[in-house]
Amino acid sequence: MLEKRTVIDVQEAINRCIIYATEMPTTEVELEKSLGYYLAEDIIASYDIPMFDKSPYDGYAVRSAATAGASGDNRVAFKSIDHIGAGSVSDKTLSHNEAVRIMTGAPIPSGADAVVMLEQTVATEEGFTLRKSFTSGENISKQGEECKKGDVILTSGTLITPGVIAVLATFSYQQVAVRKRPSVALIATGSELAEADAELTPGKIRNSNGPMIAGLLNEMHIQTESYRVTEDHFEHLLSIVQQALSKHDIVITTGGVSVGDFDFMPAIYKAIEADVLFNKVAMRPGSVTTVAVKDEQMLFGLSGNPSACYSGFELFTKPVIKKMLGAKHVHAPVMEAELSEDFTKANPFTRFIRAELDIVNRTVRPAGFNKSNAVVAIAKSNSMIILPGGTRGFQNGDTVKVMLTRLTDQGQSW
Amino acid sequence: MLEKRTVIDVQEAINRCIIYATEMPTTEVELEKSLGYYLAEDIIASYDIPMFDKSPYDGYAVRSAATAGASGDNRVAFKSIDHIGAGSVSDKTLSHNEAVRIMTGAPIPSGADAVVMLEQTVATEEGFTLRKSFTSGENISKQGEECKKGDVILTSGTLITPGVIAVLATFSYQQVAVRKRPSVALIATGSELAEADAELTPGKIRNSNGPMIAGLLNEMHIQTESYRVTEDHFEHLLSIVQQALSKHDIVITTGGVSVGDFDFMPAIYKAIEADVLFNKVAMRPGSVTTVAVKDEQMLFGLSGNPSACYSGFELFTKPVIKKMLGAKHVHAPVMEAELSEDFTKANPFTRFIRAELDIVNRTVRPAGFNKSNAVVAIAKSNSMIILPGGTRGFQNGDTVKVMLTRLTDQGQSW
Repeated sequence: MLEKRTVIDVQEAINRCIIYATEMPTTEVELEKSLGYYLAEDIIASYDIPMFDKSPYDGYAVRSAATAGASGDNRVAFKSIDHIGAGSVSDKTLSHNEAVRIMTGAPIPSGADAVVMLEQTVATEEGFTLRKSFTSGENISKQGEECKKGDVILTSGTLITPGVIAVLATFSYQQVAVRKRPSVALIATGSELAEADAELTPGKIRNSNGPMIAGLLNEMHIQTESYRVTEDHFEHLLSIVQQALSKHDIVITTGGVSVGDFDFMPAIYKAIEADVLFNKVAMRPGSVTTVAVKDEQMLFGLSGNPSACYSGFELFTKPVIKKMLGAKHVHAPVMEAELSEDFTKANPFTRFIRAELDIVNRTVRPAGFNKSNAVVAIAKSNSMIILPGGTRGFQNGDTVKVMLTRLTDQGQSW
Repeated sequence: MLEKRTVIDVQEAINRCIIYATEMPTTEVELEKSLGYYLAEDIIASYDIPMFDKSPYDGYAVRSAATAGASGDNRVAFKSIDHIGAGSVSDKTLSHNEAVRIMTGAPIPSGADAVVMLEQTVATEEGFTLRKSFTSGENISKQGEECKKGDVILTSGTLITPGVIAVLATFSYQQVAVRKRPSVALIATGSELAEADAELTPGKIRNSNGPMIAGLLNEMHIQTESYRVTEDHFEHLLSIVQQALSKHDIVITTGGVSVGDFDFMPAIYKAIEADVLFNKVAMRPGSVTTVAVKDEQMLFGLSGNPSACYSGFELFTKPVIKKMLGAKHVHAPVMEAELSEDFTKANPFTRFIRAELDIVNRTVRPAGFNKSNAVVAIAKSNSMIILPGGTRGFQNGDTVKVMLTRLTDQGQSW
């Protein structure tokens, strides 16, 4: 019954996942629902931005030549011949000492080549006077100064953020091409699990992995369907996995992947004819994480231990989903930081430690009790320390690698 | 018509916003809908975790005393008297050379005080032999080793992340106390704005601020209602603001806040008897940002220029919303980084520059064309460089402060 497993390096395991992950088909979504998707097309400027020479200030459009020689002792007078708000176009053409009152964002009228800010003028009955000269083009936002028609503004694979939505809105997009979101089935296995509404009888624990993974997926805007395992035998679990595969792109199981008599997962991968990419990784926690591929569907067999489950999701599942969504970059940033307490355990395998990173001071420490079955440390973490396999303990002050998993706020501004 | 405005420091402006922001009332939400809220109660352990001594491995539970003297030359034999999976409790009590086959997560049976990993055993007909001795407590996850009943696990004001959800699930929470989300009205003003479905006639531009701000709020799980300004006169805008205030906790206007003839906002604040906290901030862009308070409702008058609008939201609106949600920490992290190109403009006021931060190498540079009306730079940014007022240009290699606005992925793992 004790299945032989060949251990592989964690980087190699991640690479295998990424290689086998298949991009989802493209679709169009409405702009207001596009947040969190990735662009499936390059965004090319369909017109210059700005589309026309415009005023960046409230003031007067003038001919710069008419301001020549203006000074405190020699105020130059202008006559205001029109008054335009943003969105309006003046039909007047300026002569030498004429000006058009203009609002921020309004198009520069014909004949004008500079804008005088309102604060720089002294009002007169007919218009205003000013005491400095202006150069041609001064205080004008030139047509195309930000980008020109035909420029590639954003490339395919870019995450759609609010800023990207602003760009798309600017270029009149109402829909945008993206890759469909994969649908995910969640199967929490383990006879020790009591559902949230069931009594916690001796030996039982709550299913915390299911809600946690659902939350991690919801953060990626991905909805999940949870399957309930009600009987603890092979045929039942197999039928649930088959059901899940018939409806979803990804099937995540948690638990039941340890090296034990009651682990049905290896036999299930065999029964459904999935290719197991790996079933043992040189990492702690989560060494028995399994990833398998069935046609273009992927199966993640994550540990039942919360910290191992969480780490497996961050390391393997999240990058795969990003690849499926068409992301250009799929890996969380990994930076160096200074360990702010001793970590004395040896690391036969690469070790991932849920950690609190102080990103401002670049110091990091484990987020409390940190065994494979720990759960509180996940909640307190914003990162994972990565300690390479084959190393002994690390000391306060040592430099370590840290994978950032989330941005945490601070109590004071800068 | 030219309203006199008193300029205040940006930090002071932020502080005023935070002081006046009022926490929303508390409510209960279902655990699976709690993501992105903040805890409105401390989470106290209602039982020890683990709840019972359990096995962290698949193996055999034994009495450590029975393993004394075991070695390669002196293998000690054990008889397996029971077989328990996780979630089950053995009703047997172990005698000296007896063992119970045990799965990961299963409770340690009575009489046992150590767990032998399966890999450390050689099977026999009756059970197994082993060749090393074990100490009392070896390979046992002790009851309460992660936390004890009564411990404060997480404090009020903590963001509910997937890890927090895992903790709540562990402690049998099905609902959790949070503060209600504020509802937000969005009013994009400006006669230059053409809605997404309207023709882009000369002088007009698209409304990009509305969709951008809606996206920024959606990232905080906050739904918005957009109001359409169809007529360009005071009474119309006033009635829209009044309508919005009758339904929403926060009213955000974009545009119409410049120093000009057509800016109705100051008169509107007066008409609705709102207290204006400030209407000019010593910052670029967005110096004419206005924040006002009407009872416990807040009004944000953001610039119509996209980069100024975005910065105003990040600096003022976002922390206010976090405070309303009950967050312990409301400010984005600000760290130091090395400028990787020259920035030659002087900074009469504190300057915020939408920027690309390489968090791994701690270098930062402006995200392209960066005037107040720029939009593409917002999309390309993951941060804002903060240059203090009263400084001259900065050079490549200078250390600058950077506010992190989002975590961006990278193309390679570590």
